[in-house]
Amino acid sequence: MKKISILGSTGSIGTQTLDVISHDPEAYEVEGLAGGYNIGLLGEQVRRFRPKKVAVATRDLAERLRIDVPAGTEVFYGEEGLLEVAAGTDAELLVTALVGSQGLKPTLAAIEAGKHIGLANKETLVSAGHLVTALAERKQVSLLPIDSEHSAIFQCLNGENKDHIHNITLTASGGSFRDRTREELASVSVEDALKHPNWSMGAKITIDSATMVNKGLEVIEAHWLFGLSYDQIEVVIHPESIVHSFVEFVDCSIIAQMGLPDMRVPIQYALTYPNRMVTPSKRLRLADIGELHFREMDFARYPCLAMAFESGRKGGTMPTVYNAANEVAVERFLKGDISFLAIERIIAEVMAKHEAIDGPDLDTIVASDAWARSAAAQIRRS
Amino acid sequence: MKKISILGSTGSIGTQTLDVISHDPEAYEVEGLAGGYNIGLLGEQVRRFRPKKVAVATRDLAERLRIDVPAGTEVFYGEEGLLEVAAGTDAELLVTALVGSQGLKPTLAAIEAGKHIGLANKETLVSAGHLVTALAERKQVSLLPIDSEHSAIFQCLNGENKDHIHNITLTASGGSFRDRTREELASVSVEDALKHPNWSMGAKITIDSATMVNKGLEVIEAHWLFGLSYDQIEVVIHPESIVHSFVEFVDCSIIAQMGLPDMRVPIQYALTYPNRMVTPSKRLRLADIGELHFREMDFARYPCLAMAFESGRKGGTMPTVYNAANEVAVERFLKGDISFLAIERIIAEVMAKHEAIDGPDLDTIVASDAWARSAAAQIRRS
Repeated sequence: MKKISILGSTGSIGTQTLDVISHDPEAYEVEGLAGGYNIGLLGEQVRRFRPKKVAVATRDLAERLRIDVPAGTEVFYGEEGLLEVAAGTDAELLVTALVGSQGLKPTLAAIEAGKHIGLANKETLVSAGHLVTALAERKQVSLLPIDSEHSAIFQCLNGENKDHIHNITLTASGGSFRDRTREELASVSVEDALKHPNWSMGAKITIDSATMVNKGLEVIEAHWLFGLSYDQIEVVIHPESIVHSFVEFVDCSIIAQMGLPDMRVPIQYALTYPNRMVTPSKRLRLADIGELHFREMDFARYPCLAMAFESGRKGGTMPTVYNAANEVAVERFLKGDISFLAIERIIAEVMAKHEAIDGPDLDTIVASDAWARSAAAQIRRS
Repeated sequence: MKKISILGSTGSIGTQTLDVISHDPEAYEVEGLAGGYNIGLLGEQVRRFRPKKVAVATRDLAERLRIDVPAGTEVFYGEEGLLEVAAGTDAELLVTALVGSQGLKPTLAAIEAGKHIGLANKETLVSAGHLVTALAERKQVSLLPIDSEHSAIFQCLNGENKDHIHNITLTASGGSFRDRTREELASVSVEDALKHPNWSMGAKITIDSATMVNKGLEVIEAHWLFGLSYDQIEVVIHPESIVHSFVEFVDCSIIAQMGLPDMRVPIQYALTYPNRMVTPSKRLRLADIGELHFREMDFARYPCLAMAFESGRKGGTMPTVYNAANEVAVERFLKGDISFLAIERIIAEVMAKHEAIDGPDLDTIVASDAWARSAAAQIRRS
């Protein structure tokens, strides 16, 4: 019986985590669930999985949810609610599936409380990789990646010596606009951007796939998770999303992880590691797929990826600023306020205005994040 | 300093093993070398690598070689020579790169003497898998596969629990005739058959690639090496030979090993395991390859593969007979005595005549091998 809490249980990763759990209910106990605004779904989850603690975004929502949940479940809200679900239960493992930088403080609190982390909130490592990895090492907790790419690398490194790594390569589908020119990108709609060819994901990450910001965040995350220099991290376009990522060792041997695109596989791996259990997923038959394609990443086509490497190499608060500027820009795009190509312009302008601070503490990160959000909100539409 | 002996040092795997050693001469000491008839090359190898013991095929060749080697090197010949090089030195690791079933006795002798085995002679496991694996377990020696496919599976299983294996898939390039119909195969020449599209190998294994006997032997070898049932072993056609083989686990996650076709990588892995060292090989860039293709194995097109599964499932002496009949048939084809398609007919006819004996001891295996050779030699040309 593994005791698990989930931050972001009503989102794409959260619901798939509960799907994995529901396929083997004897193996897990759900200790805490934190949702945001969708209290209808959260109420259902609470009645089904009976967590001891549950959290929502606001006090008002908490009051409405309280009417609807069993007597044994405590309802919290806001930042305190996230911290209660993250660190205030008996869970051994916290799945951090919040969107954006709000996952940072509760993740640190959970590590401080000795909980292993199933990491789906990549912004945590992007903003505070130095703090999170140092604390995890001190507390001897595992950071188990849930992203398909990082789970792939993590699996490829099973039984291997990290000193033997030559480099790693993250595969990128190219996102919803991979076959469009930069000229065509000028006029794409929100609806177009939300159609990801391979993965069914939340809106923010789908836009991030189209801009390649998502891959950029993954590059920075990989830098921290696997202790690699940015020169050791490559990205290749692989439209089919079958090879989820791979490691090349010093002897020219490459170990790759593959499968059909199904997030429940990396989610379950984080829950059962180092064991593997039967999943509800379908088996990949390469002969059915027939062909796998790979092509060089084009950094001119995807400047947001180049900016991610730049922010990572600059370090300090720069990745926080890259991420925060992107979050605001994506919100503005989804609201119809700016064009698709304005996302990259906003990130570039905010990064250009920022003087990176080295080795930032949590307050400095939060301040840089807030500054970047404000700066990104103020940048003109065109 | 790792002490190594090589059976078959003048063949394709043997020379590449010495090439690997020559790229890091401080790391290895060559204790023994066994060649066959090419005493010119063997003499060069002896002068360069200074083994303590060396073996050739015949007494006459031994006498000629003795004139040509340094004083510290003892020269042996015949079966006794193979046994001296295999088991009579201080080597920790024996690379068994002999062609055919002659590798069996010296391999068992080396295991008995406590030496780890770098296994490139697949017929050893095909004929005597039950004896070799049981003895290796009792003597606590490692069987380190050198075939690219088995090395791939071996690497994919690093750090994994074998109970989590769903199945393994060996990739097959399809050999030199993969784009020809069965009708076209009726009239192919020896020269055509020797042109392998991806790998530069010896003549016998190149013919075995074209008939798919090679893959069949690999299937039987994999059964013994990894303790899998035949239902857990699949074969897929992969013309590029980039994905060298892969393992699917119960959770639908697939781990694959990839690289450019270069036998020096699996050879070196067997020499350095569990370490990885820089190789003289070239790095694979998937974007340069662009496309990887996979298609279902066609057992009607490749009946020799179906017969391998059949012989493996039947067990006992049947795989020995399959292998011995093939060895004779390939010799006859290479000499121009029979047509390409007669190879499969000879194997089928010899297998049909054989009543398999379960759990054979070494004498029974040797007798079945001799019977099958004689039977295969006598089968009519057409």
